[in-house]
Amino acid sequence: MKTTRTQVKRIPKRGHYDLKTVYSILDTGLICHVGFAVDDQPFVIPTAYGRMDNRLFIHGSPASRMLRSLQQGIEICVTVTLLDGLVLARSAMHHSMNYRSVVLCGTAELVSEREEKMQALYALTEHVMPGRWAETREPNEQELTATTVLALPIDEASAKIRTGPPVDDAADYGLPHWAGIIPLRMQAGEPIVDPKLAEGIVMPAHVKQYLRKRREFLEVV
Amino acid sequence: MKTTRTQVKRIPKRGHYDLKTVYSILDTGLICHVGFAVDDQPFVIPTAYGRMDNRLFIHGSPASRMLRSLQQGIEICVTVTLLDGLVLARSAMHHSMNYRSVVLCGTAELVSEREEKMQALYALTEHVMPGRWAETREPNEQELTATTVLALPIDEASAKIRTGPPVDDAADYGLPHWAGIIPLRMQAGEPIVDPKLAEGIVMPAHVKQYLRKRREFLEVV
Repeated sequence: MKTTRTQVKRIPKRGHYDLKTVYSILDTGLICHVGFAVDDQPFVIPTAYGRMDNRLFIHGSPASRMLRSLQQGIEICVTVTLLDGLVLARSAMHHSMNYRSVVLCGTAELVSEREEKMQALYALTEHVMPGRWAETREPNEQELTATTVLALPIDEASAKIRTGPPVDDAADYGLPHWAGIIPLRMQAGEPIVDPKLAEGIVMPAHVKQYLRKRREFLEVV
Repeated sequence: MKTTRTQVKRIPKRGHYDLKTVYSILDTGLICHVGFAVDDQPFVIPTAYGRMDNRLFIHGSPASRMLRSLQQGIEICVTVTLLDGLVLARSAMHHSMNYRSVVLCGTAELVSEREEKMQALYALTEHVMPGRWAETREPNEQELTATTVLALPIDEASAKIRTGPPVDDAADYGLPHWAGIIPLRMQAGEPIVDPKLAEGIVMPAHVKQYLRKRREFLEVV
């Protein structure tokens, strides 16, 4: 897991290399940022993803510049960041953020076998919302053909985590400035029903459950 | 603004190149993802940022691998992504997300002049929380020396935005699957006061105002 390119260099005590921590962050995030370089020009593109076992899947149109580039077997870096809070210190320079992030390096491989591709699309869909796949129309042959799926093995990954209150210089603790953490979390608002929804279709249990999960944080406070 | 490397390739109608849109997204985000390549290995690192006029600032320790690399004048790509909602369609393949993102390309320059550096740190602090700078201890000479600040001109940038309901295949609108949008927004929980806070310091107005702003979304729903 810990390799030269994934070792946490700055503030090493924040680094974690165990799979459980890495998977937990990957499973909690909603989007990743994919980094790749074409002719020395780096690009960072946000996209959805899914995980199954030790593979992370991304997908898109076969016409996508990113997917066409990644298929060449070039080195890529995928980063998932969860922002957990603002850390307000007494001094400007000790302001920080609480976060959990994963940086994943490697090369992606094309997922071309039909059943494997379907499983990857299942993982991508269920990642967004557990229970969703069973209550949608599955991809048809035309859609499968028109979709490129890539898999990145989760072999070289590191997690970086900051938690806890601000850390000020000893001399600053007596300053008259308020200090603490503002916790942050991605929360769900009231669903907007598709104006074209056919009559008589009620919100299914998996959506209600998702809403509960994405509101727990605020019900506590 | 629109150059070969920042032109939105996939779904061009989602692309925007006006500065007002780009600035608005940059000013709303909390973290950016910085992409750079060292010996053909791309890295994507999340970090805080601030904007002043047409420059985006990032900062960190002079020992940071990222900052040391970027100072070499290599091409970099900075991406800010705001996730606005999950788009649930009737078919698995038409699931999507509503988002606003900015992709910014260019080369960073070292900010070394004292007053300019102070202004960049002001922008970085005020970006996290407006009003914060005036109620903290300003950086001292030692901290200024121990901090590297880089500026990236906002010259080559593109924004990409998706809004609105799912778009399903015509034949799928009659399917018995619920469809719609789950709006998402980063929200603030109850502040956690620093256990070491000196007695008698109450929460200042700028923090209360921030909390109100980061809760408006949920008070509406």
